[in-house]
Amino acid sequence: MERFLSENFLLKSQTGKRLYREAACNLPIVDYHCHIDPADIASDRVYRTPSQLWLDHDHYKWRLLRSNGVDEAYITGDADDFSKFEQWAKTLEKAAGNPLYLWSHMELKHFFGYEGYLKGSNAAGVWDFCMKKIGTGIRASDLLRKADVRLLCTTDDPVSDLSWHREYRAGSTHAPRMLPTFRPDRILAVGNRDYPQYTAELSACAKISVTDFESLRRALDQRMDYFSENGCRLSDHSLSEFHLYPWKEREIDEIMRIRAGNGVVSTEQQHQYRSAVLCYLAGSYARRGWAMQLHFGVHRNVNSMMFATLGADTGFDCIGGPVSYQDVARFLDTLHRNNNLPRTVIYSIDPGDNAVIDSLAYSFHEPGTRSLIQHGAAWWFNDHKDGIRQHLSSLAAQGLLGTFIGMLTDSRSLLSYVRHDYFRRILCEFLGDLVDAGEYPNDPQLLETLVKDISYRNSLAYFGLEIDV
Amino acid sequence: MERFLSENFLLKSQTGKRLYREAACNLPIVDYHCHIDPADIASDRVYRTPSQLWLDHDHYKWRLLRSNGVDEAYITGDADDFSKFEQWAKTLEKAAGNPLYLWSHMELKHFFGYEGYLKGSNAAGVWDFCMKKIGTGIRASDLLRKADVRLLCTTDDPVSDLSWHREYRAGSTHAPRMLPTFRPDRILAVGNRDYPQYTAELSACAKISVTDFESLRRALDQRMDYFSENGCRLSDHSLSEFHLYPWKEREIDEIMRIRAGNGVVSTEQQHQYRSAVLCYLAGSYARRGWAMQLHFGVHRNVNSMMFATLGADTGFDCIGGPVSYQDVARFLDTLHRNNNLPRTVIYSIDPGDNAVIDSLAYSFHEPGTRSLIQHGAAWWFNDHKDGIRQHLSSLAAQGLLGTFIGMLTDSRSLLSYVRHDYFRRILCEFLGDLVDAGEYPNDPQLLETLVKDISYRNSLAYFGLEIDV
Amino acid sequence: MERFLSENFLLKSQTGKRLYREAACNLPIVDYHCHIDPADIASDRVYRTPSQLWLDHDHYKWRLLRSNGVDEAYITGDADDFSKFEQWAKTLEKAAGNPLYLWSHMELKHFFGYEGYLKGSNAAGVWDFCMKKIGTGIRASDLLRKADVRLLCTTDDPVSDLSWHREYRAGSTHAPRMLPTFRPDRILAVGNRDYPQYTAELSACAKISVTDFESLRRALDQRMDYFSENGCRLSDHSLSEFHLYPWKEREIDEIMRIRAGNGVVSTEQQHQYRSAVLCYLAGSYARRGWAMQLHFGVHRNVNSMMFATLGADTGFDCIGGPVSYQDVARFLDTLHRNNNLPRTVIYSIDPGDNAVIDSLAYSFHEPGTRSLIQHGAAWWFNDHKDGIRQHLSSLAAQGLLGTFIGMLTDSRSLLSYVRHDYFRRILCEFLGDLVDAGEYPNDPQLLETLVKDISYRNSLAYFGLEIDV
Repeated sequence: MERFLSENFLLKSQTGKRLYREAACNLPIVDYHCHIDPADIASDRVYRTPSQLWLDHDHYKWRLLRSNGVDEAYITGDADDFSKFEQWAKTLEKAAGNPLYLWSHMELKHFFGYEGYLKGSNAAGVWDFCMKKIGTGIRASDLLRKADVRLLCTTDDPVSDLSWHREYRAGSTHAPRMLPTFRPDRILAVGNRDYPQYTAELSACAKISVTDFESLRRALDQRMDYFSENGCRLSDHSLSEFHLYPWKEREIDEIMRIRAGNGVVSTEQQHQYRSAVLCYLAGSYARRGWAMQLHFGVHRNVNSMMFATLGADTGFDCIGGPVSYQDVARFLDTLHRNNNLPRTVIYSIDPGDNAVIDSLAYSFHEPGTRSLIQHGAAWWFNDHKDGIRQHLSSLAAQGLLGTFIGMLTDSRSLLSYVRHDYFRRILCEFLGDLVDAGEYPNDPQLLETLVKDISYRNSLAYFGLEIDV
Repeated sequence: MERFLSENFLLKSQTGKRLYREAACNLPIVDYHCHIDPADIASDRVYRTPSQLWLDHDHYKWRLLRSNGVDEAYITGDADDFSKFEQWAKTLEKAAGNPLYLWSHMELKHFFGYEGYLKGSNAAGVWDFCMKKIGTGIRASDLLRKADVRLLCTTDDPVSDLSWHREYRAGSTHAPRMLPTFRPDRILAVGNRDYPQYTAELSACAKISVTDFESLRRALDQRMDYFSENGCRLSDHSLSEFHLYPWKEREIDEIMRIRAGNGVVSTEQQHQYRSAVLCYLAGSYARRGWAMQLHFGVHRNVNSMMFATLGADTGFDCIGGPVSYQDVARFLDTLHRNNNLPRTVIYSIDPGDNAVIDSLAYSFHEPGTRSLIQHGAAWWFNDHKDGIRQHLSSLAAQGLLGTFIGMLTDSRSLLSYVRHDYFRRILCEFLGDLVDAGEYPNDPQLLETLVKDISYRNSLAYFGLEIDV
Repeated sequence: MERFLSENFLLKSQTGKRLYREAACNLPIVDYHCHIDPADIASDRVYRTPSQLWLDHDHYKWRLLRSNGVDEAYITGDADDFSKFEQWAKTLEKAAGNPLYLWSHMELKHFFGYEGYLKGSNAAGVWDFCMKKIGTGIRASDLLRKADVRLLCTTDDPVSDLSWHREYRAGSTHAPRMLPTFRPDRILAVGNRDYPQYTAELSACAKISVTDFESLRRALDQRMDYFSENGCRLSDHSLSEFHLYPWKEREIDEIMRIRAGNGVVSTEQQHQYRSAVLCYLAGSYARRGWAMQLHFGVHRNVNSMMFATLGADTGFDCIGGPVSYQDVARFLDTLHRNNNLPRTVIYSIDPGDNAVIDSLAYSFHEPGTRSLIQHGAAWWFNDHKDGIRQHLSSLAAQGLLGTFIGMLTDSRSLLSYVRHDYFRRILCEFLGDLVDAGEYPNDPQLLETLVKDISYRNSLAYFGLEIDV
């Protein structure tokens, strides 16, 4: 029986405990996908209260607060920072089994040195404790150093000038490295009301008038070249659903012409457009040696009143309808036949997709590359102990665990770097379990290689990234 | 290693054992959803053999008997009660890992005091043992007292006069409280052959001639008012599939006109009708402060020959096709936008839906209410150890376990109250596991609050029910 | 903590260890479904290197090799046998948690007596060790004797003359028995380019000119009679998807007429044809007392370039789209109503189908037969520890574990017989867990019956097979 948050929490097997201690607990962090604002890093933002660090922008926590009946004033509203913290304390004590319970306490311990546990009745004391530690402010760079983050990839729109990235690179501090990621969601959202306006933005930014598929390709290429110059190695796509439709060049031209005039296109036309543009982008990534990340299946903004009030990414998303992995398979096959298949990371929001993704991933390969198609780490609603364990277990059972690129934070918060430790404990326990059940040899060198490769070395090799070790 | 059915069965962790003993084992039962015949309670029915108590009406057990090759005579036929019991004994010994194995023995122990285990070779001895305990008969009230049931909600058709409920309330015994639940499945089944006849029954019962949507609404309101007067706080719906279709008042009128003449309406029209009536009902529940239960996804009566012979609810149902939770999301959102969203409990027959339901439930909320949308306890084909554990784990990982309304029996049998004990053991083990792995603090007060809240206090608060404690 | 591959590997519970040792470890093998080439058995093939035994034809291993970036020369190409072995050694060490890790070592231990573990750095030593054991060659019969295989059912096309089966039966060695299985996939693939040619082959083989549904039925009956004469008791079908469509005799005639002229038929017509032929076959199986195996949901040959190069069954298949179990239910019900329902084993490639299959299987029965519809053992991408455990757990939770027909190899390799030991360990651990948690009595006789029944006795009884014990 372990004490809460003891050095062995989440670890039950003898080998898991040893492996974590000897091979995992001091590894650096490579965070190849997150949603941290590059401005916070480049300007070395100062945080002055636990709520600023902890509760602002964290829609995971907001959902639990709302579920506890808490008024919006204490969530996204203008209640004072301590009152928000107190509401969180009262909510948290009910969140047994939620990853936020552990993450919150890991954050309190790792960044503030608080060793106890927060509940409604001690909120004031914990607040005071943290405020003392914060003092006149904690800087972004303090947090990154504390977490030993060596490299992070932000998520950026193609029309971004990447000015914060450029400024950061030009500055004196280069730890960690910060790279942009190319996320062209808005140009794929041809049915959205603001598509024509976005096309105009893209035209202006690329200095190419986007009027048809040909000019769109040139504009996107211009942006990809610009991102490449700024160190980009990854792209990313959020795709609620996925359909691969055949298209002809002139059909895409026609769709763009209609939308430029704010006209309406059919669902089928939208699928054609997205298929065409996505295939072009994938080939472009392959040519540049970039990887392509595909995030599938989120049903966004299901609560229309709250969306109208608070906008996107505020805690009103859920798991969507089934994604057609038969279409995904045809997409990968089409790219492969045309020698256009980039390294691809598939993430699904539906944990029921684990097995199909693992079976699909191992149907494409490239001599000399380890696991060309990766099943991305358990994501969002699934990045909890059971979700991560099931992902690892499915990937291991069907594939080659030793080539997995491992964990990312996918977070908006700098405190979220404790999730790497959370993941590594679950990984060590998974391996430790195998060893203790006589299913894998107790070979320290093989085990250490597995842990270090999965923890950060595979992702460096896979994405073609480098850090100072 | 535990003895079979020892005081610690289903409990492995130290904390789980302690928690069960100190906080769970003596709690009262609030059964907010069951299919017990109110006549059995109100008339204080007398049971004279184990088979009457155990095997009549229990189509879970019938499935296993049939699967063991047993002739129907010993299941629903006219074999004598002991022979049926003996067949069950022979079948049961093969049912390792089936919840019926434990439930059966928990029932034998709790209600009859039998401490051993039943198998084919000792069926006669166990029968004699139980018959001695039964003596001249066991009464419904004996069983309810023994199980410490404080409140139970039956499931009732809108045209019911609730006479048994009224008689019971007027009688001298009021332990436990018994309340009706409004289950308007037949008025939603517009495509069924007996819909016109049912409409006539409803008209007669409500004293309102149901000819169009307007009069239907008035008739339903009359029945809901009547149910309210008789203590109803919950509604319930069984929906194999779910589609939300747009409709117009006159379209619903037309559909009802066609069906009144025994005419045929299209599948789309049926979806329109159900969408319209369900939206109206949901708003009506919200106005009355009732909760809405939605049971999704059962494919009923798949064996047509057995259905022709034995009718519904005889053991020939299975998990159906996928439910569109995108439509469910739009349904909740439509109600929410119109301020018509009642507290809603979503149950799915497909365990693969756990994650999507949990993600959806936490996308709607109401300040001051804890977990407005609840993911109902693991249901029917899933109310076994793994199913319950997975439900708890999914709910906890995505939501706020401490606000969960917990277990119900959903049963036709008074012996099924042992399922609450079964659930509470699994709950204590789930929490105990977290504590023993250092994932939740070993804080007796927080843990006891979680256990008691989930075991019965949350359901009282959520449904607005009261019991004498 | 167990040593790697110790006598207790995969076994954690006390009872599981005892049960395996006392009841499971020495049982014979009945392999009612495999893809072994009957020629290998009948000709008593000689194997001369570990690679011939281990890596040729094993597309499970090929997938991992490719995923490790290995060049095709070392997989299906003309690299020498040792180099292939060495690549496998380097790959295997990364495959923690993959069943191939254990299977490979179980095979090395059981058939070669190698007690260590293989890794990149000791590949040459292990190769030499095995080569010494192989000496001048290992025969198929040596391997079968070593594995104590008593009966195996191969998978055969209806046009096969079963000459190897006949020769083997006529020969002097009859251990194990070898029976054919009727697998009419090609006659169901009406849309395939080679369907007309296959029809011609069938006509020639059955000596009946197949021109319409009537003559097709006669030809199939002729082949089924021939298979029966040669000991066949099982049929098998691979069905990516499943749709039950209504049809008329003349519609099937018309479809066959069009295809005979190499004409094109619609998707709906293909569904009609398959529905018609499958229903006819099912009834024919029922009349002959054969069982029907249905393998659902594989998406085959998703990598078109590799398919063009290497053909089918080379490691480029994955889990396909959802199968309509509502149609499967209607199919079973249609057969049942017409008294045409054979014993049926349903296998799904999607582990998410476990619960629906279990719920469906128990909706049909036949007095006197145990579990008429069986949920076949965890298959292909799922025949790993977790997949098998989840299958057992789902089956047990909804059904009658004691009537389950248990494990098969489904393999092309004679070394795969260790998978029966793998399965039996997982089964013993599943039962041991129940006992140790107080969920099933520690009754040696009941437990031994469960283990032996599931390990081989149930399959003999279910399929009507016999072995010498």
